[in-house]
Amino acid sequence: MKYLKTEFKDLKPYHSQHLTKGIILNANESPYNLPKAILEKFKDLLDNIDFNRYPDTDNTKLLASIAKTYALEVENVCAGVGSDEMLDCIFKVVISKGDKVLVPYPSFTMYKQMGIYYGANVIEIELDDEFRYDINLFIEKIISYNPKLIFLCVPNNPTGGSLSNDEIEKILKLSIGLVVVDEAYGEFDDKTALELIKKYDNLIVLKTFSKAFRLAGIRTGYALSSKENIKMINVVKMPYNLNVLSNEMAVLALDNKELILDNIKEIKNELSRTYKELKALGIEVYDSKANFLWCKLSDKIKSALIENKIYIRDIKFKDEMYSRITIGSKEEMEKLIKVVSSNANC
Amino acid sequence: MKYLKTEFKDLKPYHSQHLTKGIILNANESPYNLPKAILEKFKDLLDNIDFNRYPDTDNTKLLASIAKTYALEVENVCAGVGSDEMLDCIFKVVISKGDKVLVPYPSFTMYKQMGIYYGANVIEIELDDEFRYDINLFIEKIISYNPKLIFLCVPNNPTGGSLSNDEIEKILKLSIGLVVVDEAYGEFDDKTALELIKKYDNLIVLKTFSKAFRLAGIRTGYALSSKENIKMINVVKMPYNLNVLSNEMAVLALDNKELILDNIKEIKNELSRTYKELKALGIEVYDSKANFLWCKLSDKIKSALIENKIYIRDIKFKDEMYSRITIGSKEEMEKLIKVVSSNANC
Repeated sequence: MKYLKTEFKDLKPYHSQHLTKGIILNANESPYNLPKAILEKFKDLLDNIDFNRYPDTDNTKLLASIAKTYALEVENVCAGVGSDEMLDCIFKVVISKGDKVLVPYPSFTMYKQMGIYYGANVIEIELDDEFRYDINLFIEKIISYNPKLIFLCVPNNPTGGSLSNDEIEKILKLSIGLVVVDEAYGEFDDKTALELIKKYDNLIVLKTFSKAFRLAGIRTGYALSSKENIKMINVVKMPYNLNVLSNEMAVLALDNKELILDNIKEIKNELSRTYKELKALGIEVYDSKANFLWCKLSDKIKSALIENKIYIRDIKFKDEMYSRITIGSKEEMEKLIKVVSSNANC
Repeated sequence: MKYLKTEFKDLKPYHSQHLTKGIILNANESPYNLPKAILEKFKDLLDNIDFNRYPDTDNTKLLASIAKTYALEVENVCAGVGSDEMLDCIFKVVISKGDKVLVPYPSFTMYKQMGIYYGANVIEIELDDEFRYDINLFIEKIISYNPKLIFLCVPNNPTGGSLSNDEIEKILKLSIGLVVVDEAYGEFDDKTALELIKKYDNLIVLKTFSKAFRLAGIRTGYALSSKENIKMINVVKMPYNLNVLSNEMAVLALDNKELILDNIKEIKNELSRTYKELKALGIEVYDSKANFLWCKLSDKIKSALIENKIYIRDIKFKDEMYSRITIGSKEEMEKLIKVVSSNANC
């Protein structure tokens, strides 16, 4: 590619297979579509939208709704095209070439990918042998590298381990740089780091409508932080970043959040049941506070799943292949367990 | 802002007032909302959308539809959150700190703004005294600077002047860097540079659904170029960049483009009439091939417009204030002309 800058010549784009049929357990989505009642409300809203006009570049209505949800002020919130846009803004506004960025490994691959886009020196901190955060190792690396930016995915994608707020506070206290706590799966966990925003000016919490809110389709996420940090993100936020339809749908989702989040309990039940069943079958599987399980499956099991049109995600960690299974509906998990069980060696 | 990188400390975000009432002539939008028939079709589509699933990260259906529209191949197209996202991708993938970028002045401010985000050395090439492109000056500057990236906004926002394909070819032939021809307003012009894509591997044409397609609300734009350049943009394109609703609406718009683009003629008639009327009133106003007029209005006229809830855009050029008037409906332009005429000095 003639015009590509040389440092990007080996860069591979993030890619994910688009599945529309079968049992889709590869993208950590909710198995449940939007409730019909909300879709009907959305349709009614459409009659009042001026499609020919740009959306409100400040996303005023949505920010007010998010702020109210978390008892924060509008100035503590910025919304964008998924948490991804917030990540991009944070890199853009904070990172210069060569700046050090700490990311967990394995974790959400976009942290590292964006680090490369912005020429950062990305330092990966390995999880421990049980794929839990190794807080002491993080602390050690913060002291030796003094990074400008630290990412904590809580619970961590793809492994599912969480961090207590005491552990997060240790990192916040020690770090002179920004600490981004990505709570994309936070609604499945029994905790949030949000209360720490008022105490630490170096904390940014990211959240999304893509997982528990069942709205991956609208690509809407948001950042919560001090007013000053949000102002900083806004310096580089794209004008009119969030289209009018996603804006309206996200507001509607927050207005009806009890209804939409209603099945989190069901997903957590399935998570726990699937974990136990896999464990009982002798599968190497790890504790998770999210809506997915990190495990190691034999090639035989993986082939059998594909044959049965059950799609999970294979993820390479060092030289080994692991699997991430998104928790689907009861029926979907029963089918998965049946296939695994028929192909397990115990 | 404690964590903001020092080179951004004076950077101001792009901002635009969000208007919902009055005669809105400040954002170059179409005055006409989406036809009701298309909105109804869109509502029907919603029943088949899995909102809980991520959109197709490759925007396959939309790219196929765009490719078909312009008799190109799918691999010649990339779509994103407005042309803005395409601009961001181009900068990200091509520009390293200090690289030279040529932009017209005055022009769409995001070219320069993004240049700053990516640390580019942005060189502004002034339009001539009649606010037309000065091709000889461009050529001179290309020879002396050898820029990595050149922007041509055709027709130019905010001034309205266009470029012939012969003129664009002169620049393409001379430039060893990429040339981005932004045709955001191309549907109002009587030409396009698209035919040059097959001939020049350094040309990227940008188009959008925001102007003539009456869909500023869905934030969807696209890049058309050689397969290799599109592959390059895709290296840094955000995963799942375009939400499912904008995707579906954009496809629907292309399926019904005769109906949607039907009123371009009306807008061009109003452009020509408004130009003549303003000229007759002694207003300094310039030829335009787009859906707006670049002119100079007295403070008295500007105040009178605001008093009458007619909102246009004030734009500073060097030390002088100019105005950009978007062409609205016949009724809107009649009201504008009436106010200008009552407050003109001739």
